[in-house]
Amino acid sequence: MISALFFDVFGTLVDWRSSIARDAKALLGPLGHDIDWHSFAEAWRAEYQPSMEEVRSGRREFVKLDDLHRENLERILPRFKLEGLDADTRASLNRAWHRLDAWPDVPKGMRRLYAKYRLAPVSNGNISIMVDLARHNGFAWDTVLGAEIARDYKPNPAAYLSSARALDLEPSACVMVAAHSSDLAAAAKCGLKTAHVARPNEHGPGKGETKPSVPVDFAARDIVDLADILKA
Amino acid sequence: MISALFFDVFGTLVDWRSSIARDAKALLGPLGHDIDWHSFAEAWRAEYQPSMEEVRSGRREFVKLDDLHRENLERILPRFKLEGLDADTRASLNRAWHRLDAWPDVPKGMRRLYAKYRLAPVSNGNISIMVDLARHNGFAWDTVLGAEIARDYKPNPAAYLSSARALDLEPSACVMVAAHSSDLAAAAKCGLKTAHVARPNEHGPGKGETKPSVPVDFAARDIVDLADILKA
Repeated sequence: MISALFFDVFGTLVDWRSSIARDAKALLGPLGHDIDWHSFAEAWRAEYQPSMEEVRSGRREFVKLDDLHRENLERILPRFKLEGLDADTRASLNRAWHRLDAWPDVPKGMRRLYAKYRLAPVSNGNISIMVDLARHNGFAWDTVLGAEIARDYKPNPAAYLSSARALDLEPSACVMVAAHSSDLAAAAKCGLKTAHVARPNEHGPGKGETKPSVPVDFAARDIVDLADILKA
Repeated sequence: MISALFFDVFGTLVDWRSSIARDAKALLGPLGHDIDWHSFAEAWRAEYQPSMEEVRSGRREFVKLDDLHRENLERILPRFKLEGLDADTRASLNRAWHRLDAWPDVPKGMRRLYAKYRLAPVSNGNISIMVDLARHNGFAWDTVLGAEIARDYKPNPAAYLSSARALDLEPSACVMVAAHSSDLAAAAKCGLKTAHVARPNEHGPGKGETKPSVPVDFAARDIVDLADILKA
């Protein structure tokens, strides 16, 4: 029996690469900057896993993703000759992670799934990012779960297990939904069910997972297909 | 500038007294029990503050309200000669707190407020109670905040301050909305704005706060009136 679906967000529900490139260009272009905006987005995102690893390993106390994003931004600015940006511009740029656009199938698929299951993001993004992405894209979910509530980052077990516990559910009554096989492998190890969603263009045209590289309970083309598979 | 409204839930948004009395009767009546169902609801609720005080004082680690409700139920059962109830019936009765009905003005008023402000419950109820009450009553809010996330109970400051922090807001950008002056006094001490909602019948006909006994920023007759006052 499935009671709840837990969604990975960056890459699975929203297209961070195009959105960050677009927002950075809109913000910095008028200031006279002209760089490869997609490379900028990719470079920023490349700092994501290493920065969380400091927390996952216990070397650093939990800090929320907005703060890691900001530190990671500082790290990459010189590489793009953007070290002259003032504090307000940096802060505004960091908020681009609150304005990411959903893949087109998501709002419709989620509304169908919401009618049958409890839904929550189980993301490494903090609560305010999730709240803003939901408003921006019309996401339907019951509450925000994930890293900030667990005070630990995926793929550490606490992120998955605390989310099941928050809804009074056994892990086996929850499905982790993600476009990343590593996330699903970690969730499965915690006893959750798993659903893979293909995002073949997450990291650029033809650069994304078209199918899972690990065993999963469900494999879907997108969120509407997942709603079909789960008869929602 | 107001950005977010934080709602107290038990008493302010939902009528716990009538709902618990009705659910207890529906569950226990067919088993042959016939007691004063409203007295039963009141007795159960009377254990609420003392049980949380153990956590607030630091004498006990944080436990979620579902668990306190269950312990409090065990405590009052003998008083109503209900000590013979089996474990399943007790568990089912404890879930009555997940099925409380909203006061009639709430869904409509909240939808209007949602269009203008971030909304979240800042309740002592745990996440799963809030999620179930929102589904049951059609509440519109952005995420669940409050005791389970703060791991402390109102009126301790952590419950208010962690909620503002979760939305990246200064306390002064948040309004605590409650039918209880004590809740509002504690929120004001933390720097939040305050809105009182009259619930003259919360504890029975004529037994509830008709107006605040402390200074507040806004005083409303109900949630629709609050939407009028805040021009939502």
